[in-house]
Amino acid sequence: MSFIPIKGRKARVLVFGSGGVGTMAAYALEKGGMAEVTTVLRSNFKAVTESGFKINSIDHGLDISWSPTHNERHCSDNASQPYDFIVVATKNLADFTPGVASLIDRDVISDTTAIVLLQNGLNIERPIVDAFPYNPVISGVPYIGAIESPPGTINHVNHDELIISPFRNDNIPCKLSEDAAMNFQEIYGSCPNVTCIYERSVEKARWRKLLYNASYNTIAAILGMDTSRMRASEFIIDDLVRPAMKEIQATARQVSGVHLTDDLIETVIRQDNYKAFFRPSMLQDIDKGKHIEVENIIGEPVREAEKAGVETPTLRVIYSLLKALQFKIKIVEGLVEVPASGEKLKYGISRTRGG
Amino acid sequence: MSFIPIKGRKARVLVFGSGGVGTMAAYALEKGGMAEVTTVLRSNFKAVTESGFKINSIDHGLDISWSPTHNERHCSDNASQPYDFIVVATKNLADFTPGVASLIDRDVISDTTAIVLLQNGLNIERPIVDAFPYNPVISGVPYIGAIESPPGTINHVNHDELIISPFRNDNIPCKLSEDAAMNFQEIYGSCPNVTCIYERSVEKARWRKLLYNASYNTIAAILGMDTSRMRASEFIIDDLVRPAMKEIQATARQVSGVHLTDDLIETVIRQDNYKAFFRPSMLQDIDKGKHIEVENIIGEPVREAEKAGVETPTLRVIYSLLKALQFKIKIVEGLVEVPASGEKLKYGISRTRGG
Repeated sequence: MSFIPIKGRKARVLVFGSGGVGTMAAYALEKGGMAEVTTVLRSNFKAVTESGFKINSIDHGLDISWSPTHNERHCSDNASQPYDFIVVATKNLADFTPGVASLIDRDVISDTTAIVLLQNGLNIERPIVDAFPYNPVISGVPYIGAIESPPGTINHVNHDELIISPFRNDNIPCKLSEDAAMNFQEIYGSCPNVTCIYERSVEKARWRKLLYNASYNTIAAILGMDTSRMRASEFIIDDLVRPAMKEIQATARQVSGVHLTDDLIETVIRQDNYKAFFRPSMLQDIDKGKHIEVENIIGEPVREAEKAGVETPTLRVIYSLLKALQFKIKIVEGLVEVPASGEKLKYGISRTRGG
Repeated sequence: MSFIPIKGRKARVLVFGSGGVGTMAAYALEKGGMAEVTTVLRSNFKAVTESGFKINSIDHGLDISWSPTHNERHCSDNASQPYDFIVVATKNLADFTPGVASLIDRDVISDTTAIVLLQNGLNIERPIVDAFPYNPVISGVPYIGAIESPPGTINHVNHDELIISPFRNDNIPCKLSEDAAMNFQEIYGSCPNVTCIYERSVEKARWRKLLYNASYNTIAAILGMDTSRMRASEFIIDDLVRPAMKEIQATARQVSGVHLTDDLIETVIRQDNYKAFFRPSMLQDIDKGKHIEVENIIGEPVREAEKAGVETPTLRVIYSLLKALQFKIKIVEGLVEVPASGEKLKYGISRTRGG
């Protein structure tokens, strides 16, 4: 089995998940001239099929009206032949079913279709490898501030820098995954306005991004605070944000041999533009009552640390609090039911005395 | 110097802080027949002077219209002679000025006036002793679910059980504090509907109450969740509430030699009536945008643990998050100012890259 880089024709790319990250990826892929993109639309289907995407982009310009080559409702709607790449840019919600893997229709996949994950967090590749053990999996860490609001309108505020790595698995030759990742990097990087970097190992970029996502992103979500107010307080940085980052640093080193320096931590602490009073993605989800990416952003780092014997007291509490906030969202949605009487609950036996 | 128990006349009692706890204390004190109470009204001054208190009480009955012997605007308004007891039942906000001690007018205090604190948390007595070093200080731990809403209307839902102890300080003889505390217990306990218990040592009752207040109360405030939904989740109990209680248990033993059993922890976990879906006091404060009692409820236990070398990883994170929520409230109130530009801040140097 080998991966034959797509040359002499446009790569057929399906982009699954057309929020901020997915749409900007679709746009860059088509602008580069080496790909023909089909996007799968879900919540924004009506808005986009009626009037296309509206894009305001720091990289590409303002007031862009755009549609990809094909907009479809379902994965298989434009699948007369399999895709070369399936780009998955949905939120990664490991604690909800169906998972991402089961949303990808098998009809659209051949032996050589590579699956590209443009998602945050740790161990996101595992369910994909389980579902598609013989396909190359490409792990992408997107650095891009791109938010969809309202449906079909994308505001893209930070330069698009995408780190691409092969995710190796024992079922297929390493070279297969590497060739696929390098080919995707070439196709994406052919867009002159974006930066697309190939790294041999996926770990460093993932842990590097977790420095921010497992600290600022999570703590902002719990507190309902933008990162500038957090910095103005000083103690939120000293007592919560930096301790969380130090625990990611220790875990990355022990689990993956990745060395994240103290200087890098201080840089990430100051990374957001202070004047933007930025509300990180998980906080934006909380603001809207949407599901949060709790498991891959913080659950997996905590579990990996535990397996490796690394202490993560700060991350553990943050993780449990975020699981609790997700539990609240599930109550509102009726996905979990809270009994009116506690008699059958593990902690339901009631007494009469209040606190 | 000695404390002469008040006999043969009514004790003159000033109650400072006329929310739920203070008003029910004033009511019980007068109902017992051994005290003449003056209450100091603040936010509810207009409502109470116009139409008295409205009380719905599990101990005393429903639809009670009541006024104490005197309602005053200021401590000194009815102070032709000093009080025998000053009962302080305000919220304890150690991170705000002026503190409780400075609100008590010195005109109303004689050498033998005893100061009774009906407040939650640890080390609440210290600023009082600093301000009034030669007066007996009585430490009261109220178990009472009593909420004022709207102003002047008190809903009292759990039996009033008050633990009274002398707070010893080296400036005055132990017996002075003890006699004062025993006398107050007699006066309060003469009301047949309430339970008032004298304990020689203040520590056990304070740590016992912190089991609940440093865990359920704080975590509910961060999550915006009632205690029944927390119990229904199970993991919130196992991963947050019980670990916080275990840290209080370890700290109480190391710092004060107080032994809180594992059985007691399990009892406190089930203490609220499940069917009430109870929102603890700190959560109610958050709901209303009011200040929270963060320092004495959780800051002091964390600091005592640190001094004694007890690890409190869960309480530490909870404490920092609550300080952050208080910081948010201070921003809204204009008590702290968040600069529009981060240039002069410790963590304010901005770069352009967003997370």
